[in-house]
Amino acid sequence: MIDMTLLGTGATVPLPGRALSAALLSCQGRSILFDCGEGTQTALRREHLSPLKIDFIALSHYHGDHLFGLPGLLQTMGCLGRESPLTLCGPKGLRQVLSLIAALSGPLPFELRLLSLPPEGFPLHQAASGWPERALLLPIPTEHRVNSQGYCFRLGRAGKFDPEKARALGLPQSLWRPLQQGQSVRVRGREVRPEQVLGPPRRGLSLVFSGDTAPCSALEKAARGADLLVHEATYGGPEQAELAAEYGHSTFAQAAELAARAGVKRLWLTHFSQTLPEPEALLPLAQEHFPETVCGHDGLTIRLNFEESREKS
Amino acid sequence: MIDMTLLGTGATVPLPGRALSAALLSCQGRSILFDCGEGTQTALRREHLSPLKIDFIALSHYHGDHLFGLPGLLQTMGCLGRESPLTLCGPKGLRQVLSLIAALSGPLPFELRLLSLPPEGFPLHQAASGWPERALLLPIPTEHRVNSQGYCFRLGRAGKFDPEKARALGLPQSLWRPLQQGQSVRVRGREVRPEQVLGPPRRGLSLVFSGDTAPCSALEKAARGADLLVHEATYGGPEQAELAAEYGHSTFAQAAELAARAGVKRLWLTHFSQTLPEPEALLPLAQEHFPETVCGHDGLTIRLNFEESREKS
Repeated sequence: MIDMTLLGTGATVPLPGRALSAALLSCQGRSILFDCGEGTQTALRREHLSPLKIDFIALSHYHGDHLFGLPGLLQTMGCLGRESPLTLCGPKGLRQVLSLIAALSGPLPFELRLLSLPPEGFPLHQAASGWPERALLLPIPTEHRVNSQGYCFRLGRAGKFDPEKARALGLPQSLWRPLQQGQSVRVRGREVRPEQVLGPPRRGLSLVFSGDTAPCSALEKAARGADLLVHEATYGGPEQAELAAEYGHSTFAQAAELAARAGVKRLWLTHFSQTLPEPEALLPLAQEHFPETVCGHDGLTIRLNFEESREKS
Repeated sequence: MIDMTLLGTGATVPLPGRALSAALLSCQGRSILFDCGEGTQTALRREHLSPLKIDFIALSHYHGDHLFGLPGLLQTMGCLGRESPLTLCGPKGLRQVLSLIAALSGPLPFELRLLSLPPEGFPLHQAASGWPERALLLPIPTEHRVNSQGYCFRLGRAGKFDPEKARALGLPQSLWRPLQQGQSVRVRGREVRPEQVLGPPRRGLSLVFSGDTAPCSALEKAARGADLLVHEATYGGPEQAELAAEYGHSTFAQAAELAARAGVKRLWLTHFSQTLPEPEALLPLAQEHFPETVCGHDGLTIRLNFEESREKS
């Protein structure tokens, strides 16, 4: 099960009711924060989401509208008594940016760990306990005017458990759960591996967060079949396509065309320019290409289950 | 005429509806921003106040809740096309803090000028044109747990203009206004100085902004007879007095007692701890000592005239 909440859906300049870029993904009580624009900590509080459950911050790039909420969020985590390490990842340049942020924030009662994600993905349980073993975060090289990366979160799903096989192996019911969760167990001196009682792996969940980017083939590939693609749509109609290209952004139609090509289940648009006071009104520009498009807004939340997904707001 | 607006009234951690410390003073179309906590630029926009009219930022100290809105505000000023210099002042340590902020903000299309205010006050028209000649900003050494200063803004008022004297000197009406504004004029080869047509200087306006401080005698002295004292009241009742002393803050009663001793016209309380979800309910703790106390909230505004003052919200 994954919960995803847009915390801020504005680009460049925050507006009342539209904070700057940030989104929170939660899974089994742990969270990843994607980007951290000014206003992120206020948005977390408004949505009743705890900053202390965030053990991973994934930055798409280092423009201010994705970053300037970080000094305050770090200080607040410190005020709340955080002691557990916080892992941060981002494209090239992270160490330099973080040294400025850390100097501004001053001494913190917890460790900042900087990570460069391997292309094949990073198992999140290696950063903090509590993450499912099958939760993976992958970087996606994107096409902005500075070093940038999007992210793909994948939550794998084990094969179906076969109680008949378990009984045949003489496994007591108390050992079923670890096996279902992918752990080997020992019974009467013998090791039993999960694959002995599970069917073939089933389709899991995947979610892609674009960060800032022009239409990008690597992102399209990573988003193939995703349950949710959160894609920037800084600019609106085709009359802004030139602007979008100049600044390394996408229009509503470009984001929707990419979603259609990737065959995602649903698309959320976000990161709206202040020149778009009512992005909702432009939704048809996207739905023409991909009907399952939703116009993002601060606080938009979805819960994705293995079996079904249900929008909460 | 002075307009004063509280942009953020929270301490340490922002809450929905209560941004971090910032206040805007406007006079004759120019503005001073006092402190710049996270959320300041959003609050300016909500109050329909232009960041481009700010040519002076006066920081009380460098804790994050007074500072972390600055990188974003500077970038936004740049986006809005600002070219005119921006002057910043603060207690000792400004250069070091600003170097971090400037490195985060990246190149800006305008100059940042750092200023150490002289104790006798700085005439604001020296920083930017448009300020009245008689507008002065004075630093007040305050008592926090780091280097800190409050501010006193004084707007002087010329003596009463005497049209009889002006006519006797043969001055055409077109020259009356410059004289009323304190400028000398020439008429038929002779210089006429303002004091030849003006009575003795009259009482002007003064406004004091405390920043973070324990009850402070220098602040009390500077606030003597002020039209408005904006004083921090981080903590509420007497049961929090020990906390207030430990962290260099004031309680509701302490702020009100100081206002009473200073004989100010009115007191606004601000900078409320997150432990005070409803500061309004604590107002009697202050009004007991100083009836003209108002509990600050984001967006509270007043217009102070030479003749009268009127609260707008």
